Amino acid sequence: MNGTTESVADDGSLGGFESVEKLLQEYVPADKLAHVQRVLYGWNCGKPVAAVPLSPKLVAAAAAASFDLQAYSFTAAPEQLRPPRIVRVGLVQNSICAPTTAPFVQQRQAIFERCRQMIDAAGAAGVQVLCLQEAWHMPFGFCTREKQWNEFAESAESGPSTRLCQELARKHGMVIISPILERDEAHGGTIWNTAVVIGHTGGVLGKHRKVHIPRVGDFNESTYYMEGNTGHPVFETAFGRIAVNICYGRHHPMNWQAFGLNGAELVLNPSATVGELSEPMWPIEARNAAIANSYYVGAINRVGTETFPNPFTSGDGRPAHTDFGHFYGSSYFAAPDASRTPSLARNKDGLMIADMDLNLCQQLRDKWGFRMTARYELYAEELARYVRPNFQPQVIRDPSL
Amino acid sequence: MNGTTESVADDGSLGGFESVEKLLQEYVPADKLAHVQRVLYGWNCGKPVAAVPLSPKLVAAAAAASFDLQAYSFTAAPEQLRPPRIVRVGLVQNSICAPTTAPFVQQRQAIFERCRQMIDAAGAAGVQVLCLQEAWHMPFGFCTREKQWNEFAESAESGPSTRLCQELARKHGMVIISPILERDEAHGGTIWNTAVVIGHTGGVLGKHRKVHIPRVGDFNESTYYMEGNTGHPVFETAFGRIAVNICYGRHHPMNWQAFGLNGAELVLNPSATVGELSEPMWPIEARNAAIANSYYVGAINRVGTETFPNPFTSGDGRPAHTDFGHFYGSSYFAAPDASRTPSLARNKDGLMIADMDLNLCQQLRDKWGFRMTARYELYAEELARYVRPNFQPQVIRDPSL
Repeated sequence: MNGTTESVADDGSLGGFESVEKLLQEYVPADKLAHVQRVLYGWNCGKPVAAVPLSPKLVAAAAAASFDLQAYSFTAAPEQLRPPRIVRVGLVQNSICAPTTAPFVQQRQAIFERCRQMIDAAGAAGVQVLCLQEAWHMPFGFCTREKQWNEFAESAESGPSTRLCQELARKHGMVIISPILERDEAHGGTIWNTAVVIGHTGGVLGKHRKVHIPRVGDFNESTYYMEGNTGHPVFETAFGRIAVNICYGRHHPMNWQAFGLNGAELVLNPSATVGELSEPMWPIEARNAAIANSYYVGAINRVGTETFPNPFTSGDGRPAHTDFGHFYGSSYFAAPDASRTPSLARNKDGLMIADMDLNLCQQLRDKWGFRMTARYELYAEELARYVRPNFQPQVIRDPSL
Repeated sequence: MNGTTESVADDGSLGGFESVEKLLQEYVPADKLAHVQRVLYGWNCGKPVAAVPLSPKLVAAAAAASFDLQAYSFTAAPEQLRPPRIVRVGLVQNSICAPTTAPFVQQRQAIFERCRQMIDAAGAAGVQVLCLQEAWHMPFGFCTREKQWNEFAESAESGPSTRLCQELARKHGMVIISPILERDEAHGGTIWNTAVVIGHTGGVLGKHRKVHIPRVGDFNESTYYMEGNTGHPVFETAFGRIAVNICYGRHHPMNWQAFGLNGAELVLNPSATVGELSEPMWPIEARNAAIANSYYVGAINRVGTETFPNPFTSGDGRPAHTDFGHFYGSSYFAAPDASRTPSLARNKDGLMIADMDLNLCQQLRDKWGFRMTARYELYAEELARYVRPNFQPQVIRDPSL
């Protein structure tokens, strides 16, 4: 692999480049592709991540509505004393549908209609747990530092997004995770970045607020909301123990770990991130979390390029501009055995479905023993020392220097 | 990517399959390969991980001695107030050379000669920091549970491996990390899995003992040595602040993190792991550590299939056998900007070289701010709670269940 001088700058169009997996499938012969799939995607001998056939009607509907639809199944060993616990999980990535200059009520309505369409498709496909992307109900205006986008913030318990998701959860008997911009009226109208968890009978089970807030140039989201105060809850639903690691929290391994320590079998990672910034990290972090914590991960990224009315800078020397970059979609699932699904398209709305036997989590915990060998006591002590202002790093200096 | 039913079981031969990167380069056209390299290898627009030309003499010598030799350079931005701190680092992966039935002194001598050859090549190439693989000086007999392999254990401070590395460190002005089986005479002859760090003038700077010990079926190394008691030291050498995360420690994110908190800019991960078990994890874990901790990682794996005199079982239902599987080599470097080098061969000894500007670590810390946003206090508290026997996980149960 020699470096190329050709620009691969990412404007989201990139003629025909929908996903890396489709490129590989197009060019690498089947016998060689098997090696690539095994090493890079964890499709082990005898345990491929298999494509799941969906009804032709559903496939046609997705094509007509122009959203990517893919379905796979992970494999676990049968056990003698437990039946399999197979859950069908869906991830939705959506673009914003209406321009950011449209009246806000129209923008929101357009997104609601688009997502309703994809959630109904998920329901028709038998999806039992569904997660939407971060701040799915609004444009990602945080790059502008303008506060008018806060108008989209709503009550986690009774806002319009929550009511829509409750209706769809009831209709399909589906757990829905709805990551929104929350306005917390009980605490002076404070804004939070919050995932609302709705049970399969339509009740709001609870909410979780984003633990880590980015300050990456113009991605300083603390302009809008601060670090969450909800700990690391795991929601015990009809379809397994589920947690939500919102967006930038995926860069923090202890955040992933904390959900694991509380018993998560599936952690959803609703995100919004652009190509230049993070695309090479995207295939790594969710998989590492799945491996290290012996649970499934569903990683969801926003899709599309969003143009805003007023120019803004990005703290990177470029002239002021009106878009933040291309949200590259590429949502996928990762399993605790280091396997993963292909990605949804980089440039299209999409619904990714996977069947997963939650028994695999315990099987992998037993096989690799990471929880048993983790030496939490050692790290509890080291962290307690580290957070003291007078912390002295453990350094051994070459005496010849 | 459809699942394939063709077996891709890995016996190490796999006709012509030397590395995934070579497969991709062979089949994917250059303009498409650029996309694959960007997304899967972090070779960003304008910042490729470039191949570094080595002297034709060196290249010919490596070919004649039949070891893989590759060299790359990572890119960092120039700064105004610090000069670049470019270090040339080398990773050596070696097979055992002599059969495991040969007299131990011959086995060791054969490995010493082979590694001397590759370390001398590294010296000729100007390598300043070099790391060998886990237990490089002996066969990986731990799969047999026989204790005779302990004969290879030696003093970290003055054993034959250390003396060889000291000689070569002095000769080449090179820091050498030598991961060995240690016999600790000061504590009753206890066995440890230990990395000895030798400074560029040949002095033993110190040692670090493997923090996490696997118990994965027959990979129960606690038959031989227990959890290390040396904390997470960082060695301040003439060529940067270096730490060593030995083998199975790569599955433990807090282990990687602890070296980062103590100031590491480069963490070496000398390993010994086989295909069926871990190959799909291999491209993930070192890169995630480099990203999350804003430092470079050098991941080294043993190479070859080692056959032992007496049959042993592996706790996996197979009949007794005499080899543990194929150590798949594939050593590589990962950088904090999410880029990585290709891998060394899966089936050949090798020397991987990379030039890295250590300034990139601080640049990435400043860009992404992971240290600033990590909320260590929160996790120090959560871990302190977790290690108590009466820990109650934070679970929110659906009341309808």
